[in-house]
Amino acid sequence: MAGDKKLVEAITARDVDFAQWYTDVVKKAELTGYTSVKGCMVFKPAGYAIWENIRSELDRRFKETGVENVYLPMFIPESLLQKEKDHVEGFAPEVAWVTHGGLNVLQERMCVRPTSETLFCDLYKKDIQSYRDLPKLYNQWCSVVRWEKTTRPFLRSREFLWQEGHTAHATAEEAEERTILMLNVYADFLEEVLAIPVIRGKKTDKEKFAGAESTYTIESLMHDGKALQSGTSHNFGDGFAKAFGIQFTDKDNTLKYVHQTSWGMTTRLIGAVIMVHGDDEGLVLPPKIAPTQCVVIPIRQKAEGVLDCAQELCEELKRAGIRTKLDDSDRSPGWKFADQEMRGFPLRVEIGPKDIERGECVLVRRDTREKLQVKIGEAAEKAAALLETIHRDMYERALAFRKAHTYDAADYEEFRKTADEKPGFIRAYWCGEESCEDKIKEDTTCTSRCIPFGEEGEAPEDAVCVCCGKKAKRLVYWGKAY
Amino acid sequence: MAGDKKLVEAITARDVDFAQWYTDVVKKAELTGYTSVKGCMVFKPAGYAIWENIRSELDRRFKETGVENVYLPMFIPESLLQKEKDHVEGFAPEVAWVTHGGLNVLQERMCVRPTSETLFCDLYKKDIQSYRDLPKLYNQWCSVVRWEKTTRPFLRSREFLWQEGHTAHATAEEAEERTILMLNVYADFLEEVLAIPVIRGKKTDKEKFAGAESTYTIESLMHDGKALQSGTSHNFGDGFAKAFGIQFTDKDNTLKYVHQTSWGMTTRLIGAVIMVHGDDEGLVLPPKIAPTQCVVIPIRQKAEGVLDCAQELCEELKRAGIRTKLDDSDRSPGWKFADQEMRGFPLRVEIGPKDIERGECVLVRRDTREKLQVKIGEAAEKAAALLETIHRDMYERALAFRKAHTYDAADYEEFRKTADEKPGFIRAYWCGEESCEDKIKEDTTCTSRCIPFGEEGEAPEDAVCVCCGKKAKRLVYWGKAY
Repeated sequence: MAGDKKLVEAITARDVDFAQWYTDVVKKAELTGYTSVKGCMVFKPAGYAIWENIRSELDRRFKETGVENVYLPMFIPESLLQKEKDHVEGFAPEVAWVTHGGLNVLQERMCVRPTSETLFCDLYKKDIQSYRDLPKLYNQWCSVVRWEKTTRPFLRSREFLWQEGHTAHATAEEAEERTILMLNVYADFLEEVLAIPVIRGKKTDKEKFAGAESTYTIESLMHDGKALQSGTSHNFGDGFAKAFGIQFTDKDNTLKYVHQTSWGMTTRLIGAVIMVHGDDEGLVLPPKIAPTQCVVIPIRQKAEGVLDCAQELCEELKRAGIRTKLDDSDRSPGWKFADQEMRGFPLRVEIGPKDIERGECVLVRRDTREKLQVKIGEAAEKAAALLETIHRDMYERALAFRKAHTYDAADYEEFRKTADEKPGFIRAYWCGEESCEDKIKEDTTCTSRCIPFGEEGEAPEDAVCVCCGKKAKRLVYWGKAY
Repeated sequence: MAGDKKLVEAITARDVDFAQWYTDVVKKAELTGYTSVKGCMVFKPAGYAIWENIRSELDRRFKETGVENVYLPMFIPESLLQKEKDHVEGFAPEVAWVTHGGLNVLQERMCVRPTSETLFCDLYKKDIQSYRDLPKLYNQWCSVVRWEKTTRPFLRSREFLWQEGHTAHATAEEAEERTILMLNVYADFLEEVLAIPVIRGKKTDKEKFAGAESTYTIESLMHDGKALQSGTSHNFGDGFAKAFGIQFTDKDNTLKYVHQTSWGMTTRLIGAVIMVHGDDEGLVLPPKIAPTQCVVIPIRQKAEGVLDCAQELCEELKRAGIRTKLDDSDRSPGWKFADQEMRGFPLRVEIGPKDIERGECVLVRRDTREKLQVKIGEAAEKAAALLETIHRDMYERALAFRKAHTYDAADYEEFRKTADEKPGFIRAYWCGEESCEDKIKEDTTCTSRCIPFGEEGEAPEDAVCVCCGKKAKRLVYWGKAY
């Protein structure tokens, strides 16, 4: 079976070269493609279908909290982008500028949106007059552009797909509540749908979003021990409202500024799925977002009755709500197994003449390769249950991996040694000074990922900063990041 | 009930000023909004939700024919746009150009896609080698940019949302089949989902897409007698393949060019829905794409038990799969009726103390205002059936309207008189010469909308061109168009 070998050999082992493994998987599983547009990726059917599943599940969860979808222009006039000082400083260096429309030079150049805070403010200024117009809970699914120098499929590219929620509220409390609510929607989504455990926390001032009062984040750990910021939620306070003049008449008949939030998740999530769950055979997709959840592979498919039986089983699985495909191509079963494994479909069903004689078939898990002989009549029910089990096990394995790769560092020597030798998160106390973050980054390339929520983020009375040794204010998760 | 009056008065009557009526409806029903981005519109929740429903139903129909979704970059390098001569001539004058990325001038300027034929060709050139790689049946949902001078919400704006399908085939026959198949998917969608009857036909050479061998179209008639091109499907033959060098090794081991198609539908469809079905009270939404299909409006809602009963009824309707909202705001019932009518929700349910005493409620159709007294326990079932009836009736009315506004013109005097006096389609024979199309357009502002499919489009032996009097080749639908 030369075909199988060839198929599998093309993937570099993770421990040999993780970056190359990632590139191989993305290419061999046909998630992305290339065109002559430098730095921009193509989402091929297998990659885009994952995004469609992510989008529809996230969208459902947003709508349950009262969010409505809208669509705003992709262009932002330069003067609009400049209205909020920190915001423009954060984004101007990395935007694409449109200078000509048709045959004419534009009177004012416009950038292609890197994010749409300024446009939402422009809209809210027109649409919000009274407390009756609040809250506004808008979200948009679109693509955005940031002119990156080095790019990698899903993780960093000049154009990417995302959703950006933008809300406006009557009070600071309500805005803060929404910021946290959406962060929790994100965290639950990663855990319940993508089987990725996350650290929920707050960004330090140095790492927060351009223009935000506070930024909350969920951080996940990839198989190579690097952190990936997987979703962020920002509380703007009334900063944008003041810059844009978004005021409303409150119930007490006084004029007040609104309080705003924004929150976003991107196609990076697909990169996270690949790097958290994938193995040396290729992708391992979480069942809930796998475009194909189960592949039926006939053994000796030319033998009488095998293909009919496989087809029937495929239909049975579909009726049970399992996204199933039959692979009846003229390749060998071995090739098909390797192909299904490489593409990361969570389950396969093997069925051949001998199985049929016994009225059975074989379910094989992608994640553990465990085999389960089951009665044909019970296959659909067992497969559905198995998909649930696979999700749970994938989550538990990822959690165990993260725990095994999270280290505490008591002093700077230990921090540097850990950063040097042990890929993963480092938990260490911090004084609150940006200068220490700068020094740590310079010495180790580690950045502060977040201050975890709850007690974990608190520093005891006697704790000292891992860097300067002064009194510590918070506990911080540090890590090298994508 | 001053509130009701004010609400309704704000809409100009259709017969007084149709363009103003359209603007009023779009604004009052809160479908769109404005920002400082000139010529670009905002899709507000009520407008975007219609698009979401259109998209999900169309997407389902595409996928049933084997189409897969992808996403390609929004930028097209100038050299790529220029590869197909007719194509670049058609689009270059109306594209937006990006000249700077971050702080640097780009080596080659790029346009924001006005359509993506060239990018799909660029991808297909890389991905197609063998007959085994065919057909490619890709579609993408995205926004595109065309630098229009005058703009109108949904109908013409600098950025709009659409889908663009791009396919590649081994043979000319297969490409032609796909072109027609997708046109029929479009036509069926308009009739079965939007309740809009269409003329299916072929564009003349003058009106076909830049770079296409042939363009097929569905044309619908608006209430003001103007035509709206509602969807197009193009057969490119191997023209793009030759320009881009997209070749494959066929089963007979020879190198051949692929044959390609593309087909698209846009947010114009929302404009069509408004202008075909709307009336002087506002929007009338076809039930299948109405974001809210039914509004429950309590009468004397402060009376004991009314609100509870209305709430229960609302839940009952939801359980029956009807998208239902309860309007329990502190407005008067009259105001709520006018509001529901203006927003075009297909059904409302009125329920007050007297109805409850009798165990009944009242269903009111938006399209005809017909009232139906029904038992509360039967309301959901009746409402579901009524939504089907409303769809059918809306379609039949639109069809009757189109038939009543389609005129035959035997000679040029009759053509000019009809064009002048009777808004609608004009059916007339044509010699096949572009000069006659040009003359007709100059004299009457009518353009050739399409040559209808089947016998209707044929010219009998003795038929003569309505313009020049020479022997006619085809029958053409003419009209003033959006």
